[in-house]
Amino acid sequence: MSEQKETRPMSRSHTLQSHLVSPSDTNHLQTIFGGNVLAYIDEAAAIAAMRHSGEIVVTASVDSVDFHEAVKSGDLVNVEAWVATTGRTSMVVYVHVSVENPATGDTRTTATSFVTMVAIDDEGKPTEIPAVFGGTEEEEQIIELAHNRKNG
Amino acid sequence: MSEQKETRPMSRSHTLQSHLVSPSDTNHLQTIFGGNVLAYIDEAAAIAAMRHSGEIVVTASVDSVDFHEAVKSGDLVNVEAWVATTGRTSMVVYVHVSVENPATGDTRTTATSFVTMVAIDDEGKPTEIPAVFGGTEEEEQIIELAHNRKNG
Amino acid sequence: MSEQKETRPMSRSHTLQSHLVSPSDTNHLQTIFGGNVLAYIDEAAAIAAMRHSGEIVVTASVDSVDFHEAVKSGDLVNVEAWVATTGRTSMVVYVHVSVENPATGDTRTTATSFVTMVAIDDEGKPTEIPAVFGGTEEEEQIIELAHNRKNG
Amino acid sequence: MSEQKETRPMSRSHTLQSHLVSPSDTNHLQTIFGGNVLAYIDEAAAIAAMRHSGEIVVTASVDSVDFHEAVKSGDLVNVEAWVATTGRTSMVVYVHVSVENPATGDTRTTATSFVTMVAIDDEGKPTEIPAVFGGTEEEEQIIELAHNRKNG
Amino acid sequence: MSEQKETRPMSRSHTLQSHLVSPSDTNHLQTIFGGNVLAYIDEAAAIAAMRHSGEIVVTASVDSVDFHEAVKSGDLVNVEAWVATTGRTSMVVYVHVSVENPATGDTRTTATSFVTMVAIDDEGKPTEIPAVFGGTEEEEQIIELAHNRKNG
Amino acid sequence: MSEQKETRPMSRSHTLQSHLVSPSDTNHLQTIFGGNVLAYIDEAAAIAAMRHSGEIVVTASVDSVDFHEAVKSGDLVNVEAWVATTGRTSMVVYVHVSVENPATGDTRTTATSFVTMVAIDDEGKPTEIPAVFGGTEEEEQIIELAHNRKNG
Ligand SMILES: CC(C)(COP(=O)(O)OP(=O)(O)OC[C@H]1O[C@@H](n2cnc3c(N)ncnc32)[C@H](O)[C@@H]1OP(=O)(O)O)[C@@H](O)C(=O)NCCC(=O)NCCS
Ligand SMILES: CC(C)(COP(=O)(O)OP(=O)(O)OC[C@H]1O[C@@H](n2cnc3c(N)ncnc32)[C@H](O)[C@@H]1OP(=O)(O)O)[C@@H](O)C(=O)NCCC(=O)NCCS
Ligand SMILES: CC(C)(COP(=O)(O)OP(=O)(O)OC[C@H]1O[C@@H](n2cnc3c(N)ncnc32)[C@H](O)[C@@H]1OP(=O)(O)O)[C@@H](O)C(=O)NCCC(=O)NCCS
Ligand SMILES: CC(C)(COP(=O)(O)OP(=O)(O)OC[C@H]1O[C@@H](n2cnc3c(N)ncnc32)[C@H](O)[C@@H]1OP(=O)(O)O)[C@@H](O)C(=O)NCCC(=O)NCCS
Repeated sequence: MSEQKETRPMSRSHTLQSHLVSPSDTNHLQTIFGGNVLAYIDEAAAIAAMRHSGEIVVTASVDSVDFHEAVKSGDLVNVEAWVATTGRTSMVVYVHVSVENPATGDTRTTATSFVTMVAIDDEGKPTEIPAVFGGTEEEEQIIELAHNRKNG
Repeated sequence: MSEQKETRPMSRSHTLQSHLVSPSDTNHLQTIFGGNVLAYIDEAAAIAAMRHSGEIVVTASVDSVDFHEAVKSGDLVNVEAWVATTGRTSMVVYVHVSVENPATGDTRTTATSFVTMVAIDDEGKPTEIPAVFGGTEEEEQIIELAHNRKNG
Repeated sequence: MSEQKETRPMSRSHTLQSHLVSPSDTNHLQTIFGGNVLAYIDEAAAIAAMRHSGEIVVTASVDSVDFHEAVKSGDLVNVEAWVATTGRTSMVVYVHVSVENPATGDTRTTATSFVTMVAIDDEGKPTEIPAVFGGTEEEEQIIELAHNRKNG
Repeated sequence: MSEQKETRPMSRSHTLQSHLVSPSDTNHLQTIFGGNVLAYIDEAAAIAAMRHSGEIVVTASVDSVDFHEAVKSGDLVNVEAWVATTGRTSMVVYVHVSVENPATGDTRTTATSFVTMVAIDDEGKPTEIPAVFGGTEEEEQIIELAHNRKNG
Repeated sequence: MSEQKETRPMSRSHTLQSHLVSPSDTNHLQTIFGGNVLAYIDEAAAIAAMRHSGEIVVTASVDSVDFHEAVKSGDLVNVEAWVATTGRTSMVVYVHVSVENPATGDTRTTATSFVTMVAIDDEGKPTEIPAVFGGTEEEEQIIELAHNRKNG
Repeated sequence: MSEQKETRPMSRSHTLQSHLVSPSDTNHLQTIFGGNVLAYIDEAAAIAAMRHSGEIVVTASVDSVDFHEAVKSGDLVNVEAWVATTGRTSMVVYVHVSVENPATGDTRTTATSFVTMVAIDDEGKPTEIPAVFGGTEEEEQIIELAHNRKNG
C-alpha cells in the first residue's frame, strides 16, 4: 500500500513508577512476592503501550524474567518501560526494574523483561498502531536489545 | 558424597486454585489484566514448591508466558502447579492456567509457564531440598516438558 | 409434571482452592481474621454452585461455622466445596476448610459449613437448576451430612 | 469464688460501620458478594469484643446468616454490633446488617448474626474478661435474643 | 425566587465508621499511612453527603489536614462526618478522626477536616440539593466551625 | 552550632508515578474516588521525603487539595513530587497530579498540594535531616510556591 503509516518517538511511551514496598506486599522473610513484581511489570508495559498507540491494549506475552535481587519491605521499586519495536498491531515493550535503598540512594537492577502488548479496538480485535523510532543513545540500545532477543 | 538425599513424589506438590474473575480484576473491556494472571502463576508455584520442600521459597525466575485466551469477568481461572525437576536448592515448577466458562463447563488453556523457586532458610540463604520423582503418565510428560525446555 | 429435569454429577461442582496466608491477612498475633476464612468459604461455594448450575449465583444463607484451629501467616489454607443437594432454584454447598503446615504436610480441619446458593437469571430472578446426584462413598457421606443438617 | 469480677455496660462495646458499596465489591449483576458481608460482620464483632474486653480477640464461631436483601453497588451497608452475653473468656456479639438506599434514606435488614469471640493473651491463650450488663430496652431485647438462641 | 427549597436536618447526614487497623495498613514502624486516613476521611464525607442529598457525589476539595497522633496496628480509628453547610449543589462536610486504644477505651483526636462534596446527576452535571439545618449544641458548634473556616 | 549541616539537591527527591485507573478505583459514574488521589499524593510525598532524608517518614500534614478534573476509568494519573523546603526534621513536599488521556496524550492538572513529612528514627522520634537546595528554573518556581504558601 502507498499510505504512509504514522510514526511516534520512543520517548512518548516512556513510563516510570516508583513503588514503596510495604509489609503487606511481602512474605514471612519480609521480601516481596515475585508476583507483585510481575504485576508491576505488566502495568508499566500496558501504560507505555497505551501511550504509544493511544489504544486499549492486552498482554500477548511476557519474556522470561530473572529476579536478581531480593526486595525488602521499606525498599523502593522503580519500574521503567519504553515501547522498543512495533509490528502491525503489536508492540514489544522493554521493562527495567530496579530496587532502591532509600537510606543510601543506591539502586540495583532487579529484573528486566520484554512484554508484547497488542492494541485492541472496541470489539476486542487487534488494531493497527503507529511505528516507533528511537533517537538517543539509550533508546538505540533498547532497540538493539529488542532485536537481539528476536534473533537470539 | 555417599548420603542419599530424600526424595518425594511429584503428587505431593500438586496445587490447584480456582479463581472467580470479578469486575475488579478487569480492564475497560472487562478482560483480566495480564499482571493478575502472572500473580496467580507465582502464588501457585510458590505453594507447590513449599509443599515439596517444606521450606519458605522465593521466586528466582519465570519462563516466558504467552496469553492465548482473553479471560472475562465472570469466567473461572484454574491454575495448576507441580514441581517438575529439582536441583540442590531450586525447583522448576510447571504451571498450567486455563479459563473455564461456567455456563458450559468448557475449559481452554490460557497460558503455561515454568517458574524456578529457591528454598530459603531462616537467614535468607538457599537451603538443600529433596529430589522429586514422577510416576503417572501425566507426571512423566511434565518432566519431559521441563527437560526439553532446558535443552530447547 | 412429566418433563424430566436434567441431572448432573456432584463431581462436576467439585472446587478446590489453596491459599498461602500472608502477613496482610493476619492480625497482631499473626493469625488469620475469621472474616477472611468466611470470604474464602463464600467464594468456593459460589464457584461450586456456578459449575453445577451454569448460572450466576447469589448467597442465600451460610450455616453456622466453628473455627477449630488458628491459622498462622505462612500456613496454607485449603478450601474444598461440592454441591450436596438441590432444590428448584437453590443448591446446598458443603464446604470444608483445612489448614496445612507446609513444613510437615500435616493438615487439620479448621471449619466446615453448608452454604445455600440460589441461581439467578439476567433479571435477578431465581431460575431453575439441574438436580445433583452422588456416587462415590465420599460423595454419599456429604449428601448424608446435608440431610442430617436439615432434620437435625 | 469470692472475688467479684468487673462488669461493663453493653453500650461500651457498641460498634457502627457504614460502608459505601463500590463496583469492586460486586459481581456481574452489580450485587455485593456474600463473602464481603460476612467479612464486615466479623470485623464489627471483633471491634465490639475488643472494646468490651480490652484484649485481642479471635473468632470462635459465627451463627448461621440469612441474606434477605441483595445489596447493589452505590448502596450503603450499615453494620452494628454489641456484646450481648459473656462467659469466662468468650463473648457472644450480636451483629445487625442493614442496607440503606441513599436516594430515599430507607433501610432494610439484610442479615443478623451472633458471633462468638474469645479474648486472647500475648501467648495466644484464652484470657478472662469482664461481664456485660444491659440497661436500655434495645439492649435487653438483644440479651433476650441471645438467650433464646442458646435454648432454641 | 418564590420556590422554597427543601431543608434537611444535619442529623440525617451523620456518619460513623470504626476501623480496626491491621498490619497491612501500616509501615515499618507499624504506624498507619497518612494516605489511609485521608481515604477514610473522603469515604465518610461522601457517605454523609449522599445521605444529605440523596444523590451521587464527587469530592471537590479537602481542607488542610494535620495528623496529631500516630496510629498503631491494633488501634481503632473512628471517623465521624456531618454535612455542616450547603450551597446550591455543594456541601461542606465536617470530618472528625480519632484514635481509640481498645485496651483502655481512651480516644484522642487524630485529625479534623472539611471536605466539599458536589452532588452530580446521571449526566455528571452538578445538581441542586436541599439546605441543611442544625439544632443540637454539637451541631451548632460544627456550623460555627464551618463559618469561621470560610472567613478565617 | 558551628557544625555545617549536609545539603542535598532537590533533584534527588524527585518522584514520579504513573497509575492506570481501573474500574475498581472508581464509583458508579466511573470516576475515581477522591480518596484514591489523596492516597497517591501521600505515597509520592513519602517516597520523595525518604529519598531526600534517607529516613523513614510520617505525614504531619497535607495542605488543602482542590480537584479540578474528574478522572475516568481508563485514564492515566501522573503524580510527581519534590522536597521543596526543609526544617530541622520536617520537609515540605510539593505534589503535582495530572490526568492524561492516553488516546490523545493530552494532560491536565488535576490537583496540587504541599505535604509536610517528618523524618523519624527507630524509636519513633523526629530526627534531623539534610537541607535541600534547588537549581533549575522549575525547581526555583517550586521553592517560591512553597514560600508564598507559608506567608499567604
Ligand atoms: C493477543 C491476542 C489478541 C492475539 O490475537 P490473534 O487472534 O492471535 O491475533 P493476530 O494473529 O492478528 O495477532 C495480533 C498480533 O499479536 C501478536 N501476537 C499474538 N500472539 C502473540 C504472542 N503469544 N506473543 C507475542 N505476540 C503475539 C501477533 O504477532 C500480531 O502482531 P502484529 O499485528 O504486530 O503482526 C489474543 O491471543 C488474546 O486475546 N490473548 C489474550 C490477551 C489477554 O487478555 N491477556 C491478559 C491475560 S489472559
Ligand atoms: C436468595 C433470594 C434470591 C431468594 O429470593 P426469594 O424472593 O425468597 O425467592 P424464592 O422464594 O423463589 O426462593 C428461591 C430459593 O431460595 C431459597 N431461599 C430463599 N431464602 C433462603 C434462605 N435464607 N436460606 C436458604 N434458602 C433460601 C428458597 O427456598 C428457594 O429455593 P428452591 O427454589 O430450591 O425451592 C433473595 O432473598 C435475595 O436476593 N437475597 C440476597 C442474596 C444476596 O445478594 N446475597 C449476598 C449478600 S447480601
Ligand atoms: C477459639 C479457641 C481459642 C478456643 O480454644 P480452646 O482451647 O477450645 O479454649 P477453651 O476450651 O478454654 O475455650 C475458651 C472459650 O471459647 C469458647 N469456645 C471454644 N470453641 C467455641 C466455639 N466453636 N463456639 C463458641 N465458643 C467456643 C469456650 O466455650 C470458652 O468460653 P468461656 O471461657 O467463656 O467459657 C480455639 O478454638 C481457636 O484458636 N480457634 C481458632 C480461632 C481463630 O483463629 N479464628 C479465626 C479463623 S480460623
Ligand atoms: C508529626 C509528629 C511526629 C510531630 O511530633 P512532635 O512531637 O510535634 O514533634 P516536634 O514538635 O519535634 O516537631 C517535629 C517537626 O514536625 C513539624 N510538625 C509538627 N506538626 C506539624 C503539622 N501539623 N504540620 C506541619 N509540620 C508539623 C514541626 O514543625 C517540626 O518541624 P522541624 O523539626 O522541621 O522544625 C507527630 O505529630 C505525629 O506522630 N503525628 C502523626 C504522624 C502520622 O502517623 N501520620 C499518619 C496518619 S495519622
